[in-house]
Amino acid sequence: MDVEKVLHMKGEGTYSYADNSEFQGNTLNKMNSIIEEAVMNMLSTNYPESIGIADLGCASGPNTFSALITIVGAVCHIFRKESKPLPELRIYLNDLWGNDFNSVFKAFPSFLESIREKEEALESCFVAGVPGSFYQRILPANSLHLVHSSHGLHWLSKVPEGLNDKAGLPLNKGKTHVSQSSPSSVPQAYLHQFQKDFSLFLKLRSKEMVSDGRMVLSFAGRKTSDPCEKEDTFYTEQLSEAFAFLVSKGVVDEGKLDSFNMPRYHPCEDEVRELIDREQSFTIERFEPFERCLQDWLPPDIGDHGRYLAKVQRGGLEVMIIHHFGKEIVDDLFEKYSEILNKVPLIDYPKRLDFALVLRKSD
Amino acid sequence: MDVEKVLHMKGEGTYSYADNSEFQGNTLNKMNSIIEEAVMNMLSTNYPESIGIADLGCASGPNTFSALITIVGAVCHIFRKESKPLPELRIYLNDLWGNDFNSVFKAFPSFLESIREKEEALESCFVAGVPGSFYQRILPANSLHLVHSSHGLHWLSKVPEGLNDKAGLPLNKGKTHVSQSSPSSVPQAYLHQFQKDFSLFLKLRSKEMVSDGRMVLSFAGRKTSDPCEKEDTFYTEQLSEAFAFLVSKGVVDEGKLDSFNMPRYHPCEDEVRELIDREQSFTIERFEPFERCLQDWLPPDIGDHGRYLAKVQRGGLEVMIIHHFGKEIVDDLFEKYSEILNKVPLIDYPKRLDFALVLRKSD
Repeated sequence: MDVEKVLHMKGEGTYSYADNSEFQGNTLNKMNSIIEEAVMNMLSTNYPESIGIADLGCASGPNTFSALITIVGAVCHIFRKESKPLPELRIYLNDLWGNDFNSVFKAFPSFLESIREKEEALESCFVAGVPGSFYQRILPANSLHLVHSSHGLHWLSKVPEGLNDKAGLPLNKGKTHVSQSSPSSVPQAYLHQFQKDFSLFLKLRSKEMVSDGRMVLSFAGRKTSDPCEKEDTFYTEQLSEAFAFLVSKGVVDEGKLDSFNMPRYHPCEDEVRELIDREQSFTIERFEPFERCLQDWLPPDIGDHGRYLAKVQRGGLEVMIIHHFGKEIVDDLFEKYSEILNKVPLIDYPKRLDFALVLRKSD
Repeated sequence: MDVEKVLHMKGEGTYSYADNSEFQGNTLNKMNSIIEEAVMNMLSTNYPESIGIADLGCASGPNTFSALITIVGAVCHIFRKESKPLPELRIYLNDLWGNDFNSVFKAFPSFLESIREKEEALESCFVAGVPGSFYQRILPANSLHLVHSSHGLHWLSKVPEGLNDKAGLPLNKGKTHVSQSSPSSVPQAYLHQFQKDFSLFLKLRSKEMVSDGRMVLSFAGRKTSDPCEKEDTFYTEQLSEAFAFLVSKGVVDEGKLDSFNMPRYHPCEDEVRELIDREQSFTIERFEPFERCLQDWLPPDIGDHGRYLAKVQRGGLEVMIIHHFGKEIVDDLFEKYSEILNKVPLIDYPKRLDFALVLRKSD
């Protein structure tokens, strides 16, 4: 699977990411104070005339502009407090080639209006869409002061190599991701790919950022050092169970399932810290785990929670599944997934973990 | 009509701009040597490490990257000739909010690949989409060295004011644009709007461009000082005739037609020269009229030329017509338009005029 070309978050429709991103929106709400603090620290000593801000993995939907509104508000607040004339803002929205930028751009004018209502003195705010993988250079050297990325970095640049044995037979049989039953070489292959991707991400961004710039990142992580721990692999195991059902009914070919692995990894804190330290472009200013149970973000009085959760997952995963299996199977798959998820009482769902990081670009 | 929100060139489909822009493509081919010369003049004295290039009104379709390939090739050629390391290129593609940027972005990777095949030493080429009207500021100050705009500037920012009399009754009855039968206040109102828009365009770009930068523009113009001359109003008159037919059949309401005027103006050379001289930000390096007859760009052995020409016109006009009249009328309208155009033998079609300009940003 050519992840760069396949993966994207759909901008419209029942099963689109745009309409099923409450979980990510919940993270963004929690990130606001962290973003504000990062901006404050960044602007504590100098006040650039022009500030470059990038949102990497902006997707499309109601969340796209949420962090930017916080960032712009924080920048203007600090400049006003210091009685400085407001800077020129250059905002770059990045996502993969297939992202629905048309939806994003249609929302630009009202974003700009809402900013201008609050910040009358902000004369120059320029917004551009920058398509491409953030595992490649996407912006000019020394052009960014603040980089934000929410729920992007647990996506790998590709499905890891090393998921087949020497004879070419799949090692992660019946599973779509790191799972409790995966042989140890599978999580190793995933970790190895994450290490390569995350280090590359840091290296590329360090070229694009000015010294003393800040990077505010949030992405899915796991609590324990064991990548197969039950709490983290819960949704994967349930999805694999839904796939197993379709295999048993002859709807999905077993070999096709064995060769499907999602390009996604949830690192633990130590893995992330080690990579940042080793790469040396950034120092860690803040590293915070957010643990959340479903009740933190599910709508209250939700009846059919399985259907709701399956729909949320579908928003992120559907394009890859369709690419590999064809679109005929997705309705049946997510129907079965709903059923399986419904069997687990809400109280028994594992918590989910996100990391929030603020990194400072070294001199 | 809120032109900024309504006007856009469709990226896909039988009647899309993308599939009906042979005429504009033909202009672009003629522009190549002019672009190359402008780049050469711009780079005759200094060799910036980072070069900003904007294509304003990039639309979507096969033409979008055509001028950029010429520009990038010319820049690299000159740097190589002078044995300088190739610069960083920042490319900005601009069009209105409703433009199909998704189509443009899907074509990015192969554009970048084709550039990298030819220019291996070009390490940094960044491309961004910049949605918004070029009658507003869209890019940071002093960020551009070369601005290109093809077939954009004959579109006005809005339908001119002053197309109704004091009692609010429409002056340009039965016509969709400046026409031979328009009262003189109509072309005056159009000219006035063009003067405002073109001067504003120059002023805004001068803020975004570095001194000594070049602007390469092409847009539709007219030969004579009379804005109602037959040669220029030919297609408008024929379209009005098609509308008149729909009015006579009760398909289009007469009042609705009287209140429809297209936000488009074809200036003559003197009008353009005067505005550039008066605004003072740019000097004229080159001003060239391109006159073309149909045979220059129509496919050879075309049978049903009316249908072909109506389809080309539809690519550019359909969205505005649908916005004003509803989509029910467009098939009938362009069917009738085809018939009317077919009645004119190919040999009797007037020539069309485009201007090609190279402007140099003053110090």
